[in-house]
Amino acid sequence: MSEFTSTTNVDGKITPTTEARIPVMDRGFLYGDSIYEVFRTYEGIPLFYDEHWRRFENSAALIHLSIGHTKDELTEQIRATIRASGAAQLKRDVYVRYVVTRGEGPIDLLPHSGTRTRLVIIVKEVPTWNPIFYSRGVDVAIVGTRRNPKHALDPNIKGGNYLNNVLGVLEASARGADDCLMLDAEDRITEASNSNVFFVIDGKLVTPSQSAANLRGLTKAAIHEACKAQGLNSSEVEISAAAVAGASECFLSSSTREIMPVHKLTAEDGAAREFPEGGGPITRRVQAYYREYVRAYLRDHDALSMF
Amino acid sequence: MSEFTSTTNVDGKITPTTEARIPVMDRGFLYGDSIYEVFRTYEGIPLFYDEHWRRFENSAALIHLSIGHTKDELTEQIRATIRASGAAQLKRDVYVRYVVTRGEGPIDLLPHSGTRTRLVIIVKEVPTWNPIFYSRGVDVAIVGTRRNPKHALDPNIKGGNYLNNVLGVLEASARGADDCLMLDAEDRITEASNSNVFFVIDGKLVTPSQSAANLRGLTKAAIHEACKAQGLNSSEVEISAAAVAGASECFLSSSTREIMPVHKLTAEDGAAREFPEGGGPITRRVQAYYREYVRAYLRDHDALSMF
Repeated sequence: MSEFTSTTNVDGKITPTTEARIPVMDRGFLYGDSIYEVFRTYEGIPLFYDEHWRRFENSAALIHLSIGHTKDELTEQIRATIRASGAAQLKRDVYVRYVVTRGEGPIDLLPHSGTRTRLVIIVKEVPTWNPIFYSRGVDVAIVGTRRNPKHALDPNIKGGNYLNNVLGVLEASARGADDCLMLDAEDRITEASNSNVFFVIDGKLVTPSQSAANLRGLTKAAIHEACKAQGLNSSEVEISAAAVAGASECFLSSSTREIMPVHKLTAEDGAAREFPEGGGPITRRVQAYYREYVRAYLRDHDALSMF
Repeated sequence: MSEFTSTTNVDGKITPTTEARIPVMDRGFLYGDSIYEVFRTYEGIPLFYDEHWRRFENSAALIHLSIGHTKDELTEQIRATIRASGAAQLKRDVYVRYVVTRGEGPIDLLPHSGTRTRLVIIVKEVPTWNPIFYSRGVDVAIVGTRRNPKHALDPNIKGGNYLNNVLGVLEASARGADDCLMLDAEDRITEASNSNVFFVIDGKLVTPSQSAANLRGLTKAAIHEACKAQGLNSSEVEISAAAVAGASECFLSSSTREIMPVHKLTAEDGAAREFPEGGGPITRRVQAYYREYVRAYLRDHDALSMF
C-alpha cells in the first residue's frame, strides 16, 4: 500500500506536519485556549461531519469564542489539506484534527479584542490500535485523578486543556493498565481518558449520563441510535464506582477506537475483574450494530462526499 | 528610554518573539502539557530566582515530568536570551517566562518514552498595569466558574492548562470587573485569575489556605515573611464567600502586580462593596513592608546577580 505524508494546514499554509509551526505567543500554546474536533473518513467519506461541526460550535460557545471561520471555509481548507497529503489520490482514509485557537496576543489571560483566531488542520493516517485491544480487550484502571467538574472546566469543552486526562492515563499506565476510567467528586464513573465507556449491568446496556461530567461522544450517540434501530435498549444513567463491580461487560467508544472491548477492569483498591475476551455477547452485538449504522451512513452520504 | 526587543529562545534558537515558533505536534500545543514560571528582574537581579526554580520542580513532579534541563542550563539559556534582547546592555528590567513542554510525539495522550522536552524562554518588558489599579484599586467579581479542584488539576501545577482561569476572567470582564475571584466547590475563596488574594477581616490579615485550591504564590510567601519581620500577623485560613462581606480591605499579589489594592468587590448576586481608594491602612503597610523586603533581597543578591 502506498504511503501518504501527514500534512498540516496553519491558517492556509500547508506543509508536511513535521514542518508545521505555530507562534509561541499563540494562546493555544500559552494557555491551551483552543478547541478542536477529530473525525475520520471511511472510503473517503467523513463520518459524522455535520455532527462534529455542531459540537465544535458548542465548544466555542462554552469558552465564548467566535470561531472566525464558516463551516464552508473549514471544509475547503480540510479538502485542500487532504489533497496535499496525497491521501485522496491514493484513496486512503485519513484522521483529521481541526483546531481553532483564540490566536496571538499579548501575554494576558483576558483575550484582547481584535485577536484573530488561528485555524490548524492536521491530516494523518487513521491510527491503528494494538490488535489485542480488540481480540482480547483493553485493560483499564479506575484512577485517583478525578475528571474536571463541569462548573470548573466542562468536559464538553473539547479543547486544548487535556492535562487532567494526561494525568489520568499516566496513572493508569503506572498501574499497568492501558487506559483510565475517571470518577467525579461523587465517585461516579465519567469516562476514559478520551473515550466514553459503556457497561452491561444487570443485563442492561448503560453509559454515564451527563450528571457525571463527560463528553457527549458522537460515537456514543451513534451507538444509542444503532441499538435503538435494532431493538437493543441503551440508556444514560448514573453509574457509581461501586456499581461496576456488578458489570458483566464493558467497552470504550470513540471515533478512532469505535467499539473497543474492555478485558480487565481494576478498581482503585487494586481489585480486578475480567470480562469475556474480545467482548461479551452484548458488546459483540453493539459492534455489529455500529458497523451496520456506519455502513448506512456511508450509503446515505456517498453523494455528499467532500473529498 | 531606549527600547529592547521581546526575544524568545526555543531549544537554544534565539529570535525576536514575533518570529518564534513551535511545532504543532508539541504536546504543549496539543494538550497544554507543559509547565512554566514567570519572574521579573529588579535592577537586573531576578527576584526569587531559586524559589521559582523550586516551584517549577514541584510543578514537574505533579505532572510526572522530567524537566530534562538542569537549573544551570536553564540559567545559561535565560542569560543568553536576555543578552540577545538588548535589555542587559540597556540596563532595562525584564519579564521572563520559561516553559518546558513534554515535547513532540505522536497524537496520544499517553506520553511516549523517548519524547524530549522542549524549553521555551520568553523575555519581554515588565508589564505595566493601568495606574488606576494602584491609585484607586482594581475591581474584582466573584464568578460562577469554580477553580479546578486539587484532585482533578491541582492549581499548584503552574502549567499550560489555563482555560479555567480564562473562563473566570472572561466572566468577570463581562460583568464589568477587571479580574475574577474564583470559589471552590465548597464556596470558599481560592484566588484571582493569576494572583493570590488577601483580605482584612475583623482587623486580621488573611489569605486562603491550601484547603481551598490555590497556587502557593511566591509573592504571597514573601508577604508573610515581610509582615512577620515587621510584627504584622498574616495567616492562611479558610475564607468563605460569605465572609468577604465583612472584609474591610482586600488586595491581590503576584510577581508582576506586587501588591495591588482591590477597590470594588462584587459578589455573585451583584452586591458590591468598596474598599478605601489606593488601599486601606493595612494594605499600605503591606506594600511598604514588601518593598522593604524586596530591597533587602536585592542587597543580599546583588553579588549573585546572573545578568
